[in-house]
Amino acid sequence: MTFRAREIRLTSRPSGVPTADNFAVAEVELPDPAQGQALVRNLWMSVDPYMRGRMYDRESYVPPFQIGEALQGGAIGEVVASSDPSLQKGDLVESFLGWREAFIAPAGSLQKLPAHNVAPQAFLGVLGMPGLTAYAGLLEIGQPQAGNTVFVSGGAGAVGSVVAQIAKIKGCKVVASVGSEEKARWLKSAGVDEVVNYKSCGNLLEAVRVAAPNGIDVYFDNVGGDHLEVALEVANPFARFVECGMISQYNNLSSQPGPNNLFYIVGKSLKLQGFIVIQFQHLRDKFVADMTQWIGEGRMKWEETVFSGIENAPSAFIGLFSGANTGKMLVKLA
Amino acid sequence: MTFRAREIRLTSRPSGVPTADNFAVAEVELPDPAQGQALVRNLWMSVDPYMRGRMYDRESYVPPFQIGEALQGGAIGEVVASSDPSLQKGDLVESFLGWREAFIAPAGSLQKLPAHNVAPQAFLGVLGMPGLTAYAGLLEIGQPQAGNTVFVSGGAGAVGSVVAQIAKIKGCKVVASVGSEEKARWLKSAGVDEVVNYKSCGNLLEAVRVAAPNGIDVYFDNVGGDHLEVALEVANPFARFVECGMISQYNNLSSQPGPNNLFYIVGKSLKLQGFIVIQFQHLRDKFVADMTQWIGEGRMKWEETVFSGIENAPSAFIGLFSGANTGKMLVKLA
Repeated sequence: MTFRAREIRLTSRPSGVPTADNFAVAEVELPDPAQGQALVRNLWMSVDPYMRGRMYDRESYVPPFQIGEALQGGAIGEVVASSDPSLQKGDLVESFLGWREAFIAPAGSLQKLPAHNVAPQAFLGVLGMPGLTAYAGLLEIGQPQAGNTVFVSGGAGAVGSVVAQIAKIKGCKVVASVGSEEKARWLKSAGVDEVVNYKSCGNLLEAVRVAAPNGIDVYFDNVGGDHLEVALEVANPFARFVECGMISQYNNLSSQPGPNNLFYIVGKSLKLQGFIVIQFQHLRDKFVADMTQWIGEGRMKWEETVFSGIENAPSAFIGLFSGANTGKMLVKLA
Repeated sequence: MTFRAREIRLTSRPSGVPTADNFAVAEVELPDPAQGQALVRNLWMSVDPYMRGRMYDRESYVPPFQIGEALQGGAIGEVVASSDPSLQKGDLVESFLGWREAFIAPAGSLQKLPAHNVAPQAFLGVLGMPGLTAYAGLLEIGQPQAGNTVFVSGGAGAVGSVVAQIAKIKGCKVVASVGSEEKARWLKSAGVDEVVNYKSCGNLLEAVRVAAPNGIDVYFDNVGGDHLEVALEVANPFARFVECGMISQYNNLSSQPGPNNLFYIVGKSLKLQGFIVIQFQHLRDKFVADMTQWIGEGRMKWEETVFSGIENAPSAFIGLFSGANTGKMLVKLA
């Protein structure tokens, strides 16, 4: 018996914002799993901004995607057939083999989902990599203290919305920037103190100054560019900048000048620190325990923006760069 | 009896690079010290780049210098008369009342120099604020590991030259940038591995790449601007940037765009951290002990560039911005 599955391949490297032309659907035949392997049908796959970086042909901490090959990313799937005793038909597993409807992989490379009372795709969002990114970045680098003001850009995204809510739980005042009124309403309903719509506010610096009249102590950066410049301007002495992402810069065809007020790093004794979530794997158990508790207490909410069908995965991914998602952007595959 | 002393006052705020016009010499009469006070004649005063920041009229961690008033800064003086039992005539004291030939101050605000076998003005340099800045910034923020490559800009300055030598003591490879062949020769003689003359090297990025073929793990920034951009480019993942100063930016009349490769903070998981030396006062005893040991072992060398007479203090200060100093810039007052 063979199993036919579609996958998305990178056909060319994007120049600027990715377009549909950079991707193609292909179909592959999967044989029965060999000894030690499992055949998995993906239910959900994740698209994340960091994937744009892997589309450049350059050295990085993860190798670039290869032209003509299927892309990769987080996915939740169901075991269809297993030739390994550790996995049974019907088990739900997390893998890094998204962007395809099904795959065969060594059972040891698949992570069975723990017992849970949330929808399984939450393990691609609040309980997965974006959630851990928010949790570890904010707590380990941002070190928010009760009473601090935390500013988070991309506040309605998969990472930003978790940052905002953890900061509230830790007793901070939270200012978030978003790109639509719908996102603003959602974040306000989730308890965020002040939401700035950067597309409609006019002068971002003035809007953030009004929202954070006492300055900011932590900036969680998902955006870079003008948001970073504003954060440098309003930062209090010894503020911590969690440099998680700079989505405003990912598709630039040429280098953009940096903020013109970088001197504040010296003048205000700031710390700006980038990180990759792998650094914080040792926090995973505590992260899951804390998040599960907060979810149970109704203090951690999330939204999903869902595209359906593998053929729409490129559109979902491209949509990240225009802010088409409220909360986690997902593709439902089955 | 009265004591006549000259002092330097700020007569106008510099626009761009300070000029002689911004300063004036004035003479004051000092009475006998009242109960609890001492009259001190300054022997040496310090000029430091950070003083430029206090000439702007803006909020900062130290208040701005006031027009028409004497400037301030580190000084070493000798007690001429004391009305407090804690100080005797002839005692050498450190104060923050430089830029004047003599002054009266509460005895409790003066710090008696510890027993020493170095020239007293070393307490304005290697054993003083610049030395502690280098020591604490490098060790606490830079966290150099043996085998790391450390890049320091302004490498022949009062701070940079101490950074370079401590990094060598800690087993690092050290690359320093300087602005003259004389400075380069001195640093090489002090054991620095590679010295780049940024004024004559042509392409700074290429020169640093050649000097540090394995990239850099620590960047100690005294300069900002193009040096910071180069450091971001050659930084290894998880490199630490000690943001001590950005002398290239201090006299800019308008904001300058920042480095165009700031995205590396995210992409390479870098840490950029500014600081003020006051944060690290708790390290002072260990600093003095370590430095004294290294000086005794011949592993810590320093140079001085000396101007004579209070009337030349403005020229000494202005000279900092053209790199007129090798090592510590000092003014000898008596």
